[in-house]
Amino acid sequence: MRLRNVKNKEEILKQSNILIFDAERYRGKWQSAFEKVQPIHLEIGMGKGQFIIEMAKQNPHINFIGIERYDSVIVRALTKVEYLPNLRLIRADANRLPSFFDHEITRIYLNFSDPWPKKRHWLRRLTSPLFLEKYDLVFAGNPQICQKTDNADLFQYSLLSLSQHGYILKELSFDLEHSMIPNVLTEYEERFLEMGCPIYYVMAEKLETKDSSL
Amino acid sequence: MRLRNVKNKEEILKQSNILIFDAERYRGKWQSAFEKVQPIHLEIGMGKGQFIIEMAKQNPHINFIGIERYDSVIVRALTKVEYLPNLRLIRADANRLPSFFDHEITRIYLNFSDPWPKKRHWLRRLTSPLFLEKYDLVFAGNPQICQKTDNADLFQYSLLSLSQHGYILKELSFDLEHSMIPNVLTEYEERFLEMGCPIYYVMAEKLETKDSSL
Repeated sequence: MRLRNVKNKEEILKQSNILIFDAERYRGKWQSAFEKVQPIHLEIGMGKGQFIIEMAKQNPHINFIGIERYDSVIVRALTKVEYLPNLRLIRADANRLPSFFDHEITRIYLNFSDPWPKKRHWLRRLTSPLFLEKYDLVFAGNPQICQKTDNADLFQYSLLSLSQHGYILKELSFDLEHSMIPNVLTEYEERFLEMGCPIYYVMAEKLETKDSSL
Repeated sequence: MRLRNVKNKEEILKQSNILIFDAERYRGKWQSAFEKVQPIHLEIGMGKGQFIIEMAKQNPHINFIGIERYDSVIVRALTKVEYLPNLRLIRADANRLPSFFDHEITRIYLNFSDPWPKKRHWLRRLTSPLFLEKYDLVFAGNPQICQKTDNADLFQYSLLSLSQHGYILKELSFDLEHSMIPNVLTEYEERFLEMGCPIYYVMAEKLETKDSSL
């Protein structure tokens, strides 16, 4: 992702009321980071935040957490929204998810994740068995994974991987924009749709995960 | 399917050594219709038979049964092959499958089935819950369904339906011809590929079906 430099980056990060610096401290008690006790949905790789900010505004009955690796990207999201009671952001690598959460997430969003085209990198895909095992540790209830991508190879891989890891496919589209499925656009998706390219979408659900408190 | 009239149609049907007229009689004892006791694979809607005849030739360790509704189509297949020890054909409607088979099939092929585009006809699709329940009655072991289609809507429907009926997706391609998956072409597929259109393919497997004798 190319980003122009944001002035006062350190200042913006430091003064934010929604950026959580010590995410490990909330492990097992994320509800205390929010104003209301309600289901928690996670977006991994939230980028500049358009999707998760809009989702948080449209769904006040859900608590949203966005994870993003880069300061320079997180700061972009922080310039878009000052405060939302149901939105928190974490600057972290998705590999470390189980150190942040303990069976308290009910849905994960994966939007336009890196497709890692080379076979030797496939375990880095966010729907690889390696990541699905990590998600098992953070998930509660009948958790759901929602993925959007323009990459057919990644999408096929995800369908196989999800199905073989105990997930049941509940919603599916090979052309999300022209389907009946409601959709909040990401920045990337907007540019992609302008080029007339279809978006793949799947929502998959797993049964019998450890119970949530909700 | 458009077919020129075949002369001596009745004669060809009557004299065939592979066409089974009284399929109900073999229910529960289909191995006796073949020369060797080995797994039985079924193609529903085999059309003019190119796929199943070639499959039977390439896989002598499998017994194949082709089902087709129309005499005029079956007779086309019979003009292509005189006899194969591991191939039998049935003229019947797929709705009647459970009256022909009792937990003795280990794989079903669905090649370019009617997509039934109107929603009120979806239960007629060969991957509808209605048909998957019928397949449960004829399947044995860890049965597999292999579907090829050029129709994206039917394919999406199939993936959801199979996943929600307990099947796990094992192989998947949105462009079968350019994948690494081995493939025997149907007549329809040959014409379709000439137009440069991709073929969707899925192989799905279900666990814990009633045991086969094999």
